Amino acid sequence: MTIKPRLAPTDDLRPGEVALGVEPAAGSASLFFIGRIFTPWATRGECPRRGDLAGPLCRVDIAEPWREALFGIETCERLQLLYWMHLSRRDLVLQNPRHGDRIHGTFALRSPVRPNPIASSIVVLERVEGSRLFVRGLDCVDGTPLLDIKPEHCPRA
Amino acid sequence: MTIKPRLAPTDDLRPGEVALGVEPAAGSASLFFIGRIFTPWATRGECPRRGDLAGPLCRVDIAEPWREALFGIETCERLQLLYWMHLSRRDLVLQNPRHGDRIHGTFALRSPVRPNPIASSIVVLERVEGSRLFVRGLDCVDGTPLLDIKPEHCPRA
Repeated sequence: MTIKPRLAPTDDLRPGEVALGVEPAAGSASLFFIGRIFTPWATRGECPRRGDLAGPLCRVDIAEPWREALFGIETCERLQLLYWMHLSRRDLVLQNPRHGDRIHGTFALRSPVRPNPIASSIVVLERVEGSRLFVRGLDCVDGTPLLDIKPEHCPRA
Repeated sequence: MTIKPRLAPTDDLRPGEVALGVEPAAGSASLFFIGRIFTPWATRGECPRRGDLAGPLCRVDIAEPWREALFGIETCERLQLLYWMHLSRRDLVLQNPRHGDRIHGTFALRSPVRPNPIASSIVVLERVEGSRLFVRGLDCVDGTPLLDIKPEHCPRA
């Protein structure tokens, strides 16, 4: 399940973009992929620019060791999902977005290209079937690794 | 700057909590710590339960290789910060929250204790000084490693 990030490719820079010439300092912490997201979009080019809470139903499969951690999830109408944009390069500091007309710093954009390509989306939970969640609101490519599920807000104590 | 997560400690479980007895499968991806967050809270016990946009001013220092990625950030009134809750255990699937009265699955809680202890907070950006941001809205312990900065919404193209 390990996917190597593409670091510092030398091609496909748009005008004005700046990439770090070297790999950043060694990874400082390790992530567990706790599941996988299945969407209708087979390639990044097909993905919507942002998720739509009325968009197509997507499936989230939780890996076995974490299944019990779903206890009570069905009481949450909306969830925040964090996922790993495994196809993104991680070395750009300045970017020239396809849908924009000027240069932005990476941290002034929600582009998938960033040092830690973690996406955060709010989704509507339609139903739970065992260790599978069915949700609307995602924007990511089919097969994206899942990092976390949280209720949108803290439950009432 | 590397901080080892506390995995599977055998003590301090509250009634009804369940921890995975073993370390989960090997880390599937590596994170870069891109900076550090400085807050008034020296210990986890002092941290507020959630951030307050009118709360105390906190400082976010960006590590040198990523400084250029701040270009344009001052146009963003609100930012989403992702940070690594480096003091959290990562093995609990069922939790008995201090402020609650019953057991929840980890994914039905916004507790810092989770397989990938990534926090997501919306903050108000007060000002930028070089590679330092001054923000309000955080809830984390002083010295927390930073993972990402995004505008709350996509900038207009």
